[in-house]
Amino acid sequence: MREWESHVRKVTPYTPGEQPGSFPGMVKLNTNENPYPPAPGVRKALEELTPESFRLYPDPAASELVDALAEYYGKDRERFFVGVGSDDVIAMAFQTFFNSKEPILFPDISYSFYSVWAQLFGIPYRRPALDGEFRLVKEDYFGENGGIIFPNPNAPTGLYLELGAVEEILAHNPSSVVIVDEAYVDFAGPSAMELVDRYDNLLVVQTFSKSRSLAGLRIGFAYGQPQLIRYLNDVKYSFNSYTLNLPSLKLGAEALKDKAYFRETVEKIVATRERVKRELSSLGFHFPDSGANFIFAAHESCPAGELFQALRKEHIYVRYFDAPRIRNYLRITIGTDEEMNKLLSFLKAYLKR
Amino acid sequence: MREWESHVRKVTPYTPGEQPGSFPGMVKLNTNENPYPPAPGVRKALEELTPESFRLYPDPAASELVDALAEYYGKDRERFFVGVGSDDVIAMAFQTFFNSKEPILFPDISYSFYSVWAQLFGIPYRRPALDGEFRLVKEDYFGENGGIIFPNPNAPTGLYLELGAVEEILAHNPSSVVIVDEAYVDFAGPSAMELVDRYDNLLVVQTFSKSRSLAGLRIGFAYGQPQLIRYLNDVKYSFNSYTLNLPSLKLGAEALKDKAYFRETVEKIVATRERVKRELSSLGFHFPDSGANFIFAAHESCPAGELFQALRKEHIYVRYFDAPRIRNYLRITIGTDEEMNKLLSFLKAYLKR
Repeated sequence: MREWESHVRKVTPYTPGEQPGSFPGMVKLNTNENPYPPAPGVRKALEELTPESFRLYPDPAASELVDALAEYYGKDRERFFVGVGSDDVIAMAFQTFFNSKEPILFPDISYSFYSVWAQLFGIPYRRPALDGEFRLVKEDYFGENGGIIFPNPNAPTGLYLELGAVEEILAHNPSSVVIVDEAYVDFAGPSAMELVDRYDNLLVVQTFSKSRSLAGLRIGFAYGQPQLIRYLNDVKYSFNSYTLNLPSLKLGAEALKDKAYFRETVEKIVATRERVKRELSSLGFHFPDSGANFIFAAHESCPAGELFQALRKEHIYVRYFDAPRIRNYLRITIGTDEEMNKLLSFLKAYLKR
Repeated sequence: MREWESHVRKVTPYTPGEQPGSFPGMVKLNTNENPYPPAPGVRKALEELTPESFRLYPDPAASELVDALAEYYGKDRERFFVGVGSDDVIAMAFQTFFNSKEPILFPDISYSFYSVWAQLFGIPYRRPALDGEFRLVKEDYFGENGGIIFPNPNAPTGLYLELGAVEEILAHNPSSVVIVDEAYVDFAGPSAMELVDRYDNLLVVQTFSKSRSLAGLRIGFAYGQPQLIRYLNDVKYSFNSYTLNLPSLKLGAEALKDKAYFRETVEKIVATRERVKRELSSLGFHFPDSGANFIFAAHESCPAGELFQALRKEHIYVRYFDAPRIRNYLRITIGTDEEMNKLLSFLKAYLKR
């Protein structure tokens, strides 16, 4: 080791899902992207971008996008914070709000980035176990802690926790910031955003990468009372003044405007999901009852690792986590009906051998 | 204060330069943007972007852009790291490399974000004073330290430090990572990139926001030996897997291809800068001999704060730092000849009163 290496921060990074170069015939069901294109208005906004406009810095306050969010949700603009995907937003929130000596809490089976951020920022953490059916046990979050975060619906299980339980967790934690990571909420139930009026320590995080088909632009946002958002902005402005670039600001704002298209594509994905659940059941799979745009499924006899490899050979990509309690599950993104039919046909044939 | 607020990280953020909405007649010389549009190929690449492509995550390794950099500089791709502007790159580098108990070193007059990052990450720092003519005193960087960073050319003075002096600093610091922040180097002298073969602790950071006219896309990069770049990537992948969005990857790669256009616009800016230096001198201004795309100028009799306000009333925006040793200086970005003529005419008239 060189002398200078002793001062280097050494971490075990998060491993993102494969992003294989796309090719004809490939079925990509591994990173929970939306199979439908963004709202038609995004094309017009893209056509209106000019290369000349790129020579200037973007608005550091991201006002155009923040205003579009405020308008869409009918809430004050002071309640919104935006970042480079919800990962950027949550990373900033960890740095801003999780500075206690008490451990922060998140479920043992959850978004695997949480422990990576905790390690990066030196935050102690504890991971209460989900129950045998992968349900979050709310009482586990009632004790002393340095902060709480959980996805709702949970990832990679897809299970949605009713707002009543979310509120109970909030009611027991007036001295911690509670982050509800709602990347998939548009496919599930009501958002915890409605609890923000009553809880000034609640931060709700959402993304444009799933229900809004804009993973390629990297846009996430947080919603909370103005004091929380101010603290978050102070850290953001201490890190990078200009995070969202001009295309993200312009096209992101545009994507919010078409409510009919949004509802239509979300409903299509939900309908496909429910059909795929029935078909997977009949093939011998079991799974938590997902409220997200993916299904987390295990087969009664064929190991997930084997299925993962067999699917991969057919250029059908799903996600496999070689981790305790979940290594017999595959996380399967909901694609178009055509894509799901390819997956189901292959599984049908493969499991019959 | 609410109970949960005791665990909040409280910081004093960096204040970016004003980004007033642009309007006809406005002369924006306050954030060192390039007055010329990006290379013509960027328009073609922009036209080729499709809304459909945004539904997928961008390549987390940013290969297209990294490969374009490797090709442009004729170096291995393992030597390049990219981020959301050089601010993102430097913030990651602070987190990655500055983990000693010894203070890091940077000049007292320098990019004001350095102390903000140090504060955010809890890094001790010391700021050796530039000499009376704003020159960096290399010997001040020969003692024990936890890391070194300085801009070259320096900001906001514009002074370029010869590579011989940069190398002396490197030679005295085998146990620290030395970051040379070269946001403005294309307007000055040779880059410290050529020293990287000999120093495995040297990280050179550059940006697409100045010489490449892409401030609106947020693209920065670091160049160093592969081991440094690997450490940096580990921290990046622990923070946000997908930082650069698709437009940045595609248009950034394209912007590197047109070397003739790049040389032409850089030369135009340098020629304008040299002319403006002569004109400012004849108006009674003095300034360090800038190698950047700005001039840091003080007038012999009229206070900078007064000039700043008078210019602002005319919709001519320059940058003013109300800080020790530099509060009589204005930082004036080099715009087009036409823009600089507006500035000079106004100053001529104003100073004659």
